[in-house]
Amino acid sequence: MAGSRRPGRNFLFVPGPTNVPERVQRAMIVPMEDHRSPVFPDLTLPLFEETRKIFKSRDGQVFLFPSSGTGAWEAALTNTLSPGDRVLAPRFGQFSTLWIDLAQRVGLDVEIQDEAWGTGADPARIEEALRADREHRIKAVLVVHNETATGVTSDIGAVRRAIDAAGHPAMLYVDGVSSIGSIDFRADEWGVDCAITGSQKGLMLPAGLGIVCASQRALAASRTAECRRAYFDFADQTKANATGYFPYTPPLPLLYGLREALRCLEEEGLEQVFARHRRLADGARAAVRAWGLTLCAREPKWHSDTVSAVMVPEGINGAEVISLAYRRYNLALGAGLSQVAGKLFRIGHLGDLNELMLLGALSGCEMAMRDAGIRIEPGSGVAAAQEHFRETRES
Amino acid sequence: MAGSRRPGRNFLFVPGPTNVPERVQRAMIVPMEDHRSPVFPDLTLPLFEETRKIFKSRDGQVFLFPSSGTGAWEAALTNTLSPGDRVLAPRFGQFSTLWIDLAQRVGLDVEIQDEAWGTGADPARIEEALRADREHRIKAVLVVHNETATGVTSDIGAVRRAIDAAGHPAMLYVDGVSSIGSIDFRADEWGVDCAITGSQKGLMLPAGLGIVCASQRALAASRTAECRRAYFDFADQTKANATGYFPYTPPLPLLYGLREALRCLEEEGLEQVFARHRRLADGARAAVRAWGLTLCAREPKWHSDTVSAVMVPEGINGAEVISLAYRRYNLALGAGLSQVAGKLFRIGHLGDLNELMLLGALSGCEMAMRDAGIRIEPGSGVAAAQEHFRETRES
Amino acid sequence: MAGSRRPGRNFLFVPGPTNVPERVQRAMIVPMEDHRSPVFPDLTLPLFEETRKIFKSRDGQVFLFPSSGTGAWEAALTNTLSPGDRVLAPRFGQFSTLWIDLAQRVGLDVEIQDEAWGTGADPARIEEALRADREHRIKAVLVVHNETATGVTSDIGAVRRAIDAAGHPAMLYVDGVSSIGSIDFRADEWGVDCAITGSQKGLMLPAGLGIVCASQRALAASRTAECRRAYFDFADQTKANATGYFPYTPPLPLLYGLREALRCLEEEGLEQVFARHRRLADGARAAVRAWGLTLCAREPKWHSDTVSAVMVPEGINGAEVISLAYRRYNLALGAGLSQVAGKLFRIGHLGDLNELMLLGALSGCEMAMRDAGIRIEPGSGVAAAQEHFRETRES
Amino acid sequence: MAGSRRPGRNFLFVPGPTNVPERVQRAMIVPMEDHRSPVFPDLTLPLFEETRKIFKSRDGQVFLFPSSGTGAWEAALTNTLSPGDRVLAPRFGQFSTLWIDLAQRVGLDVEIQDEAWGTGADPARIEEALRADREHRIKAVLVVHNETATGVTSDIGAVRRAIDAAGHPAMLYVDGVSSIGSIDFRADEWGVDCAITGSQKGLMLPAGLGIVCASQRALAASRTAECRRAYFDFADQTKANATGYFPYTPPLPLLYGLREALRCLEEEGLEQVFARHRRLADGARAAVRAWGLTLCAREPKWHSDTVSAVMVPEGINGAEVISLAYRRYNLALGAGLSQVAGKLFRIGHLGDLNELMLLGALSGCEMAMRDAGIRIEPGSGVAAAQEHFRETRES
Repeated sequence: MAGSRRPGRNFLFVPGPTNVPERVQRAMIVPMEDHRSPVFPDLTLPLFEETRKIFKSRDGQVFLFPSSGTGAWEAALTNTLSPGDRVLAPRFGQFSTLWIDLAQRVGLDVEIQDEAWGTGADPARIEEALRADREHRIKAVLVVHNETATGVTSDIGAVRRAIDAAGHPAMLYVDGVSSIGSIDFRADEWGVDCAITGSQKGLMLPAGLGIVCASQRALAASRTAECRRAYFDFADQTKANATGYFPYTPPLPLLYGLREALRCLEEEGLEQVFARHRRLADGARAAVRAWGLTLCAREPKWHSDTVSAVMVPEGINGAEVISLAYRRYNLALGAGLSQVAGKLFRIGHLGDLNELMLLGALSGCEMAMRDAGIRIEPGSGVAAAQEHFRETRES
Repeated sequence: MAGSRRPGRNFLFVPGPTNVPERVQRAMIVPMEDHRSPVFPDLTLPLFEETRKIFKSRDGQVFLFPSSGTGAWEAALTNTLSPGDRVLAPRFGQFSTLWIDLAQRVGLDVEIQDEAWGTGADPARIEEALRADREHRIKAVLVVHNETATGVTSDIGAVRRAIDAAGHPAMLYVDGVSSIGSIDFRADEWGVDCAITGSQKGLMLPAGLGIVCASQRALAASRTAECRRAYFDFADQTKANATGYFPYTPPLPLLYGLREALRCLEEEGLEQVFARHRRLADGARAAVRAWGLTLCAREPKWHSDTVSAVMVPEGINGAEVISLAYRRYNLALGAGLSQVAGKLFRIGHLGDLNELMLLGALSGCEMAMRDAGIRIEPGSGVAAAQEHFRETRES
Repeated sequence: MAGSRRPGRNFLFVPGPTNVPERVQRAMIVPMEDHRSPVFPDLTLPLFEETRKIFKSRDGQVFLFPSSGTGAWEAALTNTLSPGDRVLAPRFGQFSTLWIDLAQRVGLDVEIQDEAWGTGADPARIEEALRADREHRIKAVLVVHNETATGVTSDIGAVRRAIDAAGHPAMLYVDGVSSIGSIDFRADEWGVDCAITGSQKGLMLPAGLGIVCASQRALAASRTAECRRAYFDFADQTKANATGYFPYTPPLPLLYGLREALRCLEEEGLEQVFARHRRLADGARAAVRAWGLTLCAREPKWHSDTVSAVMVPEGINGAEVISLAYRRYNLALGAGLSQVAGKLFRIGHLGDLNELMLLGALSGCEMAMRDAGIRIEPGSGVAAAQEHFRETRES
Repeated sequence: MAGSRRPGRNFLFVPGPTNVPERVQRAMIVPMEDHRSPVFPDLTLPLFEETRKIFKSRDGQVFLFPSSGTGAWEAALTNTLSPGDRVLAPRFGQFSTLWIDLAQRVGLDVEIQDEAWGTGADPARIEEALRADREHRIKAVLVVHNETATGVTSDIGAVRRAIDAAGHPAMLYVDGVSSIGSIDFRADEWGVDCAITGSQKGLMLPAGLGIVCASQRALAASRTAECRRAYFDFADQTKANATGYFPYTPPLPLLYGLREALRCLEEEGLEQVFARHRRLADGARAAVRAWGLTLCAREPKWHSDTVSAVMVPEGINGAEVISLAYRRYNLALGAGLSQVAGKLFRIGHLGDLNELMLLGALSGCEMAMRDAGIRIEPGSGVAAAQEHFRETRES
C-alpha cells in the first residue's frame, strides 16, 4: 500500500461539480425522516421560495426533481410542448448540442442555428428567424446561457429583446446550469419561461437535483402540452408541492443542503457572489494573457465568468496538459469536448472559491503546461492574477 | 425557543426511507471530484457488479439513474416497450396503482387485474389471461413484489411459473423497491426481465438512485422499443457505463454510499439479512396477535417481511394513532393510503434494524394505540415479540 | 466476513459517555483553524458565559481543560489547596473513592467519612465533623453529587446548610460529572466553590473536556495555593481566556460541539431537561418495581435521575446479564464496580434520550435477565414504564 | 448578514493545528460507545502498537493522554523525575522556554543553556555540561527537536552522541510535537527516553491527545519518581492499557481518528512522508530566497522541514503581514513570538499538504507582503517553488 495515498486536497477546477462548502457538507449529514410527517413542510415550503430568488423570479414556480440537470432539460420541454412543435435553438458547443439532441428525442422539431464554437447565441439571427416565422410555428427559443464547453456566455437580455422586436410569441427557455448562482440571471426581466439549472454548479451541492423555474405562461402551456411525461410531470409536483410534499421520495440530504447553500448565497449577497465570480474570472484571464495564450471565447463579450477554455499552442495536446495536471499536481481541469477536443483545457472557476484556491490552480496549470512543453514563463500568470486581485480588493 | 427541541432520536418506522447506517453515512461525506477523471471508474465499475448481486442476476445489466424509484419504473417501461404495447398488471394496492398509472401515461395499454387489497398477484389469473392472449399482444407482465401500502408480498416465482405454464413470451417486470435487499429476490431464477428498486429502502441510503437490472432479453427489446425517452435512455447509460462513466453528472455521495451499503449487506450476508428481516417481521406479527388485532394482509402467505399494516378496530381512525405516535413519542409510522385510509397504520421494519429498535417502536405503538382509545394490554405485544426473539436467537 | 456486521444501532445505556445528538455531531465536523486568529474569540468568549449558566453560577469562572473529568478533579484541588491541607470527604461509591485517592496523591490529608454504598453524603455527620474541627484545619468538603456506581444522588443543598450550621469556613467542592446538565445543580445557591464536570455526560459530547466552575473564593484561594500544577494551572487559563484564547492548542471540535450542545439545552429549557430526566428515571424505576427487583439506592431520597443500579437476585451474576445484553441484543449496560461487582447492573438514563429509546433498553434488560435465569414477567417492566410515560405526558 | 460569508477555504499555514484529511475527518464521526465493552480493545490494542512505529521505537511504551501536548510534557517529567532533580535544557525559542518553565513549576532544577534564537541545541555545550557534572546530578537532558517559533530543527542524534561521549547516564527527553510524523524521528537509534508529541501536527488530527513514548529506562524510573502526579500517572495508564482500556473515559473520536491517520501515514509510507515535507519545505525556502528575504534559522543545518520563519525587512511589522494575509486573502500564518515578535512571519508546511496548497499559500504571502509594503517581485517566490517542484517530481 505504501505510496498509494495522495496527500493534501485535490484542486477541483472542472466546471462542475464544484466544491461543497464545509457548512453545506455538514447540513447534508441528516438522519432519514418521514417525508410525509407534519413538520416536513417546514423544510420544504420555504425552500421553493428561496430557490426562486436565485432565478430572480417573483411568480415563477420552482420544481425540484431528483435528477441531474439533463432531467431538468427534459422536464422543461416535455411539460410545455407537444410532439412536432417547432423550437429554435442556436448551437455553439457541446451542451447546446446535447440539449438539441434531447429536444429531438422527445419529439420536437428543432430549427438549429449553428454558430461558431467560441461565440454564442446571435440575437440578430434569432430575430430574423422569428420574423420569418409568420405563422408562429416556433413555440420556443432554447438558449444555453453559459456554454460550459467553450467558456462562452450569451446575452439572454439581448435574446429577449430580439424576440420582442420580432413581435413573436415564442417562449424563451434558458439553460442556466453553469451560470445560475454564479453569473447574473434575471428570469423576470428577461422573460425566461423555463429557466433550468442543477445542484452541482453555482449551488455548490452534489449533483442530484434538476431544477426548473417555470413562468406562469409556461405553466399555462403545461396544461395542454402533449409530450409524454410521467416522472418529470409538473402537475404531480405542483399538487404535492402545494402543501410541502413530493409525489415520490425526495433526496433528503440534498434538500437540507440546498437550504444551507441558499443561506450561503444570501449571506454573501447574490450580487457580491456575481462580483466575486467576475473578479476571479478576470484574474484567470489576466493569467492567460500573461502566458501569451488565448481563450476559446473569441471576444471579451463572450467571456464566461465561470469557466475559461484556454487554447493550447499548435503541436500540443490539451489532453496531455490535463493528464499531467491530474497525475502530477492533483489538479482537475476540464477537457476539450467534440470539435475542440485536444485543442484546449478548461479552468472551471465557479462555486465556493477564493483567490488563493485559484492561484494554486493557476500554479498547477503553469507547471503542467511547462511539463507538456508549452513555453510559458513560470509564475507569470500567477503574478498577473495576484496583481489583479490586489488592485481590485475591497478592504 | 425553550421547549422547541425534541430530545433523543426519532424512531423511523415508515416503510422507507430507512435508517442509514453510521458507516454508510460517513461514506457519503465526500468532497466533490471530477467524474471524468481516470480514477473514477475504480469506484464505478465494481459498483455495477456488486449491485447486480443484490438482484441475484448473473448477466443482467444494472442501471443507476439519478432519480427516485418512480424514475426506474419509467426507465424500465420506456426503454423496452412501444406506445400502444399491451401489458398485464395486477392491481392490489397504492403502488401497483401508481405504476399502472405511469404505464398508461407513457402510452401503454394496460390490462388490469384487480385483486382485493390485502392480497397480491394471482398466478392462476395471470396464467389464464396469458392463455387467453393467443396473439401474444401482451408484451410484459408488471408485478409489484412487495406492496408497501398493504404489507403484502406476492410470489414472483409462482408468477414466473404461470407465464411459463401459459407458454407465453411476455416479459416479466417486477417492482422490488421495498423488497430488494430485504426479502429474497431472484432475478435469474424467476426470469425477471426488468427488476426495479430505489436506494432508500433495503439499500439503506437516502433516496436519489433509481435502479434497474435488465435482462439480456430486455436489453434486446430496448434496441427496437419506441417509447420516447431521453434522460432515462438505456443506450446512453450503456455506452458511458462501459468505461465507468455516466452520460451526465452522477450523484457522487450516493455512489460512495451505495458501495458502502453493499459492503454492509455482504458482511452481514445476504441470506442472513433476509433471515433477520423475517425474524423481526415475525416479532412484529407476534405483537399484533398479542394485541388482538389483525393485519391487512389476509393470509400468512401474503405477509410482508418489510412492512406490517395493522388494522385498527372499528370506530378508531388509524391516522389518529399515527399522529399521536409522532407527536407524543417521536415514532414515525406509515399511514393507510387510498382504499385503506384511516383503517390501518403501517410499521415499516426494513433496513438497518435490530430487535431493540423494533421493541422500542412496538412500545410506541402500544402507547399511541392506548392514547387513541384502542384497548390493548400494555406490554403485551412487546412481551410476545421479546419471547419470539429470545426463542429464535442464534447465539 | 459474512456475519461480521451487527445491524442497527447500539443501545448505549452506560452512564456515560452518552449519545451525541445529530446536530452536535454535525457541529463538531470542522476544519482545523488558527486558534490565535482574530475571530477565534467570537467562538470562545460566549462559550465561557454559556457554560456558566449550566452550573447556575453568576460570577463563577469556567475553565475548559483538554482532559477527562478526572483532570478537572485534579485542577480543582491543586489550584486551590496546598500540600498537607485537610479536606473532608464522604465515601460511598467508586467515584467518591477515586476522587479521594486522587486528593491523597496530590498531597492532601483526607478525612474520610465512609457511608454505606447505596446511600450518600450525610449532612449531619458532615456538620458534626466540621463542628469538631475547631481550628478550622479542614479547608474543603468534597462531595460527589451523583455517585454513578450506585445510582445515588446526594443532597448538596443540605450539605451547604450543614457547613453553614457548623459555622465553618471550609470551601465546598462538588463532583457533578454525572449530574450537571441532567439533574438540577445550583452552584450559587448551594455555595459550591469548585463545581466539576466533563463533556461526556449531560453535555452530550465525546469525552475530552474537563470543566471546572470556580467561585470567586476559590479563585482567591488559587493565588496562594501551593500544590504543584502546570498543565491544569488556573492562572495560565485565566490570562489567556480573558481575551478568548488558550495557553495551549484547544480541542476545536469539542469547543464547537459544546456551543451546539449548550444551544440544545437552552432550546429544550434547562428545567425541562431536568424534568425529562426525572420522568425517564421514574419510568425506569417503575420497571424495576414491576420486575420485583430493587435498586442499589436504599431509599427514594437517594434515587438518581441519571443512573439506576438494579440489584440482581442471589445466585445470579450481574455481569452475566450485562454480557448477554451486549452480545445478544446490542445493549450496553453499566457493570457493578468494586464492592458491588456482580451484584447489580446499571442502566444509565441520561443525555439525549426519549421514552422509546429507554423502552427499547428496558426490553433488552428483560430479555437479558430472562436469558440469565432471572424470573421476571416479560413485558412487565416495559408496561409499567409505558403507563408512567402515558400518565405524565405533557401534550 | 450580506457580506458576512467568506467564500472558499481558509488556507491554514500555521504550524499546527494542521489540516485533517477528509478520510480522517470521516473516521472521527462515530457514535459514542461503551469504552468498557468487550470489543473496545479491538480498537485500542493495535493503536498502541501502530503509534509506537511513528516514534521508531521497538519496545517503548506509548501513552495516550486526553490533553494537549503540554500535558505530555508534564506527564514525561512528573512520572520519571523527583522534585529537586536537575535537568539540562537548551533554550532557543518559545517552546523550549515554555517547557523549561513547566519543568520548574513541577519542582525540577533546570540548568538552562541559552542559545541564540535561530539556532538550536549545541551538542558540544551539552557534552561539556555533562562532563562537568561529575556527580551525575543531571538526571535528564530536555531538547525541543523542532522549535516551532523559529523554524529550527536540532540534531537529536548529535545530542545523543554528546551524552554518550560524556559518558553520562542522563536520560534524553525530546519534544517532537512539531516534528514527529513529519520529520524523521528515531527514538531507539537516538536513545530517546521520553518522546513527546500531540495529535494536531504531523498526526493530522485535532488537538486533544498528548502522546508520550517512554523507553524501558524511563518506565523503570517512573517506579521511584516522586513528582506529584495523578491525572498523568503512567502506572494507572499502564494497568488499564494492558487490556485495552483507560483509567478514565477516553476521547473516542480522536482514537478512531488516530487509527485512520496512522493508516494514512502507512499508506503513503513514513519515509515518503518525510521526503514530501522536505520537498515542500525546500520549495518554500526557494521562494524565500527568490523574494530576497532570509529565514530566522541562521544556517541550513537548522532549517526546519515543518515551519519556515521568514524575517521581514527593517521597518516592516511582521504582524501586519499576517493580519493582511488573514483579512484579505484568508491565509493563516504564524506570528513571531516573544523575542522575535513583529520581526517575522511563519509559514507552517506540515501535515496533509501538497504542492498546489503551498503554492496558493505562497501567492498569499506575496500579496500580503506587497500590501504591507515589502518590495518583492510578484510571482517570484511562486515561480521558484514551482520550478523546484517540477525538478524534483517523481513521476
